[in-house]
Amino acid sequence: MPMNALYAQSGGVTPVINASAAGVITAARLYPSHIGRVFVAKNGILGVLNEELIDTAVLSNGDLAQLKATPGGAFGSCRHKIKTEAELARILAVFKAWDIGYFFYNGGGDSADTCLKVSELAEAAGYPLLAIHVPKTIDNDLPHTDNSPGFGSVAKYVATSVREAGLDVKSMAASSTKVFILEVMGRHTGWIAAASGLAARAEGEPPHLILLPEVPVDEGRLLAAVENTVMRYGYCVIVAAEGVRDTHGEFLSEAGGKDAFGHVQLGGLAPYLAGLIKTHCGFKCHWSVADYLQRAARHTASATDLAQAIAVGEAAVKLAVAGQGGMMATIERLSDVPYTWDIGAVPLGVVANCEKPLPPEYIAADGFGITPAARRYFAPLIAGEAPPPYVDGLPDYGAWVWSIEAPCLPVFKF
Amino acid sequence: MPMNALYAQSGGVTPVINASAAGVITAARLYPSHIGRVFVAKNGILGVLNEELIDTAVLSNGDLAQLKATPGGAFGSCRHKIKTEAELARILAVFKAWDIGYFFYNGGGDSADTCLKVSELAEAAGYPLLAIHVPKTIDNDLPHTDNSPGFGSVAKYVATSVREAGLDVKSMAASSTKVFILEVMGRHTGWIAAASGLAARAEGEPPHLILLPEVPVDEGRLLAAVENTVMRYGYCVIVAAEGVRDTHGEFLSEAGGKDAFGHVQLGGLAPYLAGLIKTHCGFKCHWSVADYLQRAARHTASATDLAQAIAVGEAAVKLAVAGQGGMMATIERLSDVPYTWDIGAVPLGVVANCEKPLPPEYIAADGFGITPAARRYFAPLIAGEAPPPYVDGLPDYGAWVWSIEAPCLPVFKF
Repeated sequence: MPMNALYAQSGGVTPVINASAAGVITAARLYPSHIGRVFVAKNGILGVLNEELIDTAVLSNGDLAQLKATPGGAFGSCRHKIKTEAELARILAVFKAWDIGYFFYNGGGDSADTCLKVSELAEAAGYPLLAIHVPKTIDNDLPHTDNSPGFGSVAKYVATSVREAGLDVKSMAASSTKVFILEVMGRHTGWIAAASGLAARAEGEPPHLILLPEVPVDEGRLLAAVENTVMRYGYCVIVAAEGVRDTHGEFLSEAGGKDAFGHVQLGGLAPYLAGLIKTHCGFKCHWSVADYLQRAARHTASATDLAQAIAVGEAAVKLAVAGQGGMMATIERLSDVPYTWDIGAVPLGVVANCEKPLPPEYIAADGFGITPAARRYFAPLIAGEAPPPYVDGLPDYGAWVWSIEAPCLPVFKF
Repeated sequence: MPMNALYAQSGGVTPVINASAAGVITAARLYPSHIGRVFVAKNGILGVLNEELIDTAVLSNGDLAQLKATPGGAFGSCRHKIKTEAELARILAVFKAWDIGYFFYNGGGDSADTCLKVSELAEAAGYPLLAIHVPKTIDNDLPHTDNSPGFGSVAKYVATSVREAGLDVKSMAASSTKVFILEVMGRHTGWIAAASGLAARAEGEPPHLILLPEVPVDEGRLLAAVENTVMRYGYCVIVAAEGVRDTHGEFLSEAGGKDAFGHVQLGGLAPYLAGLIKTHCGFKCHWSVADYLQRAARHTASATDLAQAIAVGEAAVKLAVAGQGGMMATIERLSDVPYTWDIGAVPLGVVANCEKPLPPEYIAADGFGITPAARRYFAPLIAGEAPPPYVDGLPDYGAWVWSIEAPCLPVFKF
């Protein structure tokens, strides 16, 4: 009897993480002599700890197709860092109870670390487990892969939004709003903000200024750049990564001070920048915070990203079937134009808890834009459209109610 | 020789206002014996006052097709309320200088008032002018028309975004974010926020709570509703119109107090609500402010909205050719299912400076949702997809550089 497989989603979800799930499940069905039942843990690793498993045999081909077209984490994800030996031991106990021989963990850097720890623990215990990491993060900060599935779609959403909002501001600038600020995700790295630069096809098109966590913001220089941009083009569109810091290393988003209750204002970066620019330059500002909208926008997913999300899921299964545990599936870029890529793999040890920063050569000399090298890197990642099916004018996303397998073990106490 | 026509865009732009422009220009070309040259004023009525006119003869059929697929105001819009007799007189002087016999003004309630004033002034002066208003406003608050072109596309964007972000929050709620707040436009009326209710197909699906300017928010009741929703469904998605007020009639968005400089916080409603909920309920909150993104999102325009935006433009020309000045083209709903509609017209006097509130029968008894009657009204307005062409992974929007006709008159001093 072949051993069973377990797949789980981890950390912040993406527009295409379910496509990786579909890739894993579909590929696993191709190897019945290697892989028995394919389970998914509800709410990521929490579902392992709580022994809440879903048997994916219930998913029809139609379900799998809809899974590829549905954003969010269809099985639930979690933010839970494995903290104790007891938790690790519990994971192994659940794996043993359910005869799990394959663990597919779909996440970012933290999850790669969990995947590695589980793999090492199983090995030390002499338990036959092949743990494979399926990469995913909109932050695009996983090393040793051309990009992280999820990122290309967010980049496409943000670049589309900037091009659109830029046309709006340009229309109004003669007598009203002159500055628009879009706050995007990116607490430690500026990949998403930088990719918005693709929106500009020609000199003077938005975004005019990109603020990156990698480049400390001097407020005087920023205000001068805003004034200069409005003078030259009549308006100014700014894309700011949430993690932008000032020259003292403080988050600008925390510069707004505290509210009447003494709490740090949750107001965020965009309203802070709008207040700053309005006060010092006198320009009417509008601002938007994309937040989860960018991370869930399956309706404008990148076809390239979708294909890669599916491919890394399928590749993880092939690695497992080939006996290659303790690995992460990767995307290897073969050429920029035309964009060609292949699937590779790296040991988890070189991925776990690492963070790939935006390369300095992608950042323009003035710190407010991107270079041609960055455009060459980003351009193929947003290529192609892969819209979901629509019903009644809205994307027809799946809404599954999972039935959980009856547990075998006592309840785990955290 | 037939007289010339002048078209201008006014107020906040929409994803489909350029489609109305294309409708006007295309239709005007069909009546060469009635209409001579077709000009557009740059930046709306400011372009009339400044005598900055664009001759649309330069626009090819390809340009007109691209105009229909491009958001924002391609010719520039403005926020300028005609304040003086001198300005009105100047408008008439420019019309005389350019032999303008047809004035097509594309805007909301304020613009309808301007259009009416210009019409009346011309009549009083014995100048032969047919002034026709082309309706447009994402706020959907124009009376005597089934809806206002622009609204359906924004409604589709907001409902799509809520469905998507809702799936994201649901994925994370077991161990992280439990509440998501989306702030949408609507300072005086809740049309956009209410339309987001279409995202829910079944009981318990987002949005769980809709906050409307028409329903004063009692914070205690709101917090209880949030707690109750999280208890029932595990998470809570809130859509809030920017113009939501408390029970004292104050904007909630101004409740956040003042910043260190003594300025009213620009932080807005969504971060205020997030702070409130976090403080009182302890739930991790995420929030998004859609702002211009919703108003410019041509990539997810409603096909129905697009068709109606074109139709009101064409209808305005037909009214003009039929000698029907001082009118606004309207959309008349003939039936809900299937949705059928026709074009009508009403005198400007019954439209100018009026505001159509959300009908009480569209608001659920608890004030936090919409009724089946509202769904019947909203559903057809978001129906159908009309994506723009894509190049290199992004919408291929037009980027025109207009040449301005040499002026005939002295410069106007405001």
